Amino acid sequence: MEDHSIKVNFCSSEKEKPKSDQLQFGRVFTDHMFIMDYSAPLGWHDARIVPYQPLSIDPSAMVFHYGQSVFEGLKAYLNPDGEAQLFRPEKNLQRINRSNDRLCIPPIDEEYALKAIKQLVAIDKDWIPEAEGTSLYIRPFIISTEAFLGVAPSHNYKFIVILSPVGAYYKEGINPVKIAVENKYVRAVAGGTGEAKTGGNYASSLKAQELVANSGYAQVLWLDGVEKKYIEEVGSMNVFFKIDGEVVTPKLNGSILEGVTRNSVIELLKYWDIPVSERRISMEDLRQAHQEGRLEEAFGSGTAAVISPIGQLTWNDTDLIINNHETGPVAKRLYDTLTGIQYGKVEDPFGWIEKVREPSKVKS
Amino acid sequence: MEDHSIKVNFCSSEKEKPKSDQLQFGRVFTDHMFIMDYSAPLGWHDARIVPYQPLSIDPSAMVFHYGQSVFEGLKAYLNPDGEAQLFRPEKNLQRINRSNDRLCIPPIDEEYALKAIKQLVAIDKDWIPEAEGTSLYIRPFIISTEAFLGVAPSHNYKFIVILSPVGAYYKEGINPVKIAVENKYVRAVAGGTGEAKTGGNYASSLKAQELVANSGYAQVLWLDGVEKKYIEEVGSMNVFFKIDGEVVTPKLNGSILEGVTRNSVIELLKYWDIPVSERRISMEDLRQAHQEGRLEEAFGSGTAAVISPIGQLTWNDTDLIINNHETGPVAKRLYDTLTGIQYGKVEDPFGWIEKVREPSKVKS
Ligand SMILES: Cc1ncc(COP(=O)(O)O)c(C=O)c1O
Ligand SMILES: Cc1ncc(COP(=O)(O)O)c(C=O)c1O
Repeated sequence: MEDHSIKVNFCSSEKEKPKSDQLQFGRVFTDHMFIMDYSAPLGWHDARIVPYQPLSIDPSAMVFHYGQSVFEGLKAYLNPDGEAQLFRPEKNLQRINRSNDRLCIPPIDEEYALKAIKQLVAIDKDWIPEAEGTSLYIRPFIISTEAFLGVAPSHNYKFIVILSPVGAYYKEGINPVKIAVENKYVRAVAGGTGEAKTGGNYASSLKAQELVANSGYAQVLWLDGVEKKYIEEVGSMNVFFKIDGEVVTPKLNGSILEGVTRNSVIELLKYWDIPVSERRISMEDLRQAHQEGRLEEAFGSGTAAVISPIGQLTWNDTDLIINNHETGPVAKRLYDTLTGIQYGKVEDPFGWIEKVREPSKVKS
Repeated sequence: MEDHSIKVNFCSSEKEKPKSDQLQFGRVFTDHMFIMDYSAPLGWHDARIVPYQPLSIDPSAMVFHYGQSVFEGLKAYLNPDGEAQLFRPEKNLQRINRSNDRLCIPPIDEEYALKAIKQLVAIDKDWIPEAEGTSLYIRPFIISTEAFLGVAPSHNYKFIVILSPVGAYYKEGINPVKIAVENKYVRAVAGGTGEAKTGGNYASSLKAQELVANSGYAQVLWLDGVEKKYIEEVGSMNVFFKIDGEVVTPKLNGSILEGVTRNSVIELLKYWDIPVSERRISMEDLRQAHQEGRLEEAFGSGTAAVISPIGQLTWNDTDLIINNHETGPVAKRLYDTLTGIQYGKVEDPFGWIEKVREPSKVKS
């Protein structure tokens, strides 16, 4: 795609911003959004920032019927100097293109999309909340819009970015959660769409999540769809275990989403010289490690929570209590360092931070 | 839900109808559509028939992100007396509620939905094309519309029905197709959403379909996601084989969609005293049956094509040529009888036909 400039159509009146202490996740959206259209002859075109508004879409649009869609999730943080900054945004744009490939959606220009995201965040910078642990959630997504009921890749798409100020994930400090190992439902399987960030994976996960929530669990631990033996992910996070001093996480196998946080955790552990490995982990191995007192920590990783310690894993009738329901030292150190880097309070030796320039300095 | 009456808001000017011989599938829609809303306190409410029009939906609506949606597909046919009639519509409404259950979508009142479909078809009856093999495709679907980015069942939905006049599937007579057995990609797996009619299953299937189409195949034959040995479906149809005089189809196992046509084929075969069984069928068994000359016929079944004979199955490097690339007698008899019943030209001993009353007689 040619690097066309982004037209900006500012809103006429700004919405009221929610109070920092009343922020939830994903319920309130900022004043503007980014849109770009795709059509077969033109490619991606008509990039524009417009007031946040409903989409007008034909009821036969493919996204409503055949789920051809992908999305991403990242955040903008305010650093101590009051500047907006992003955490490894290029990783999200690389991933959306991997998802696009799996879903037969035409790729986007990653650099151009990053430029668009930065310009949008700059325009709505006042929406980035200031209170501890709060941030501006960024949701880029692509939907198929061709008005056609045939099961085939769409010829028309919209790439959209919306922004939502979100509250601190841990309002009352980090509390390890209870997780149920899921034996019946499957999130994804090799040959399916598990490694893509596409709607169907999440639609498929709702039922299991709803059932365990009724029994007091925060999330499910997903096992592989083939043998239902090997650990894949926890809820919509990647998962790590510290066993015998080594941190392990399931190896990417086609059905696991490659998390940006997962990758950052691995990089940090290596930097700290803490042994870390990616390999297949069975529930039975985990149970045994627990029984022998070798399971030291367990935690999920993802953009929303950063690190989410697991205090208990229930597998059939067995409860594995981990680290006495307390946050372990590795989980704590990872959480503090990652959030420290994200909020610009800790040195960033990896070049993970990408600053957003102020609106006045943005060339369009 | 209480049986509220359906408000009707007629369009002010009718669109031009396509010529019967220029009809495609799912590209042109009729003058009206049915909509009903769901919200947590009210349940399903505000049922209405309105002019066909774009939907106005918040960009954060869950359907765009987490794929929480279901759909159905059935047809209205003109019988020789010029009356509109449906084929086993209650089966589609039962299935949409099974899909709803899997996707955590609140159930609809099946009788009320059938009444709505009949009223909509009656209003747009002039859109049912008359030429041989043509029909009016009916697409009921439900989308999640809550403006919220959390991964959780939506609190708001729309149930919508749109109509599209469609051309004859076999314009130049039935021609058996070439099918490639898919060894890499998986449509669905036990514990996933395969038995539900939800967008994600179709999004997931696009890639495999695109790849085999490039090699000259009409569709893929899906194998089970666990062992990649057992036959599941063909494209978006169920599949049947005639082996040694017996017709077999894969047994429903959680990852196969329970087709209305599949069920009708089984019923018809029983009625004709042709042996039929539902069981697990491996590709290896099929290859062997073919090698020993016992594989007599193969065909897909679905609403769009009714019966779609398979002339060749390619599995790795082996081409199984079936019935010399010709339509077999059982496939032919099923096609003639099913379409005969659907168009009211053949007696319907099963009570499968449901007539649509004329607009003037419709009480709202
Ligand atoms: C299924 C799934 N796994 C893992 C993750 C973690 O990925 P990341 O660290 O990039 O947020 C996410 C979400 O963000 C997810 O949806
Ligand atoms: C995946 C899949 N399998 C089978 C079928 C056949 O079902 P039916 O006979 O009800 O049309 C369909 C579609 O209609 C389908 O989408």
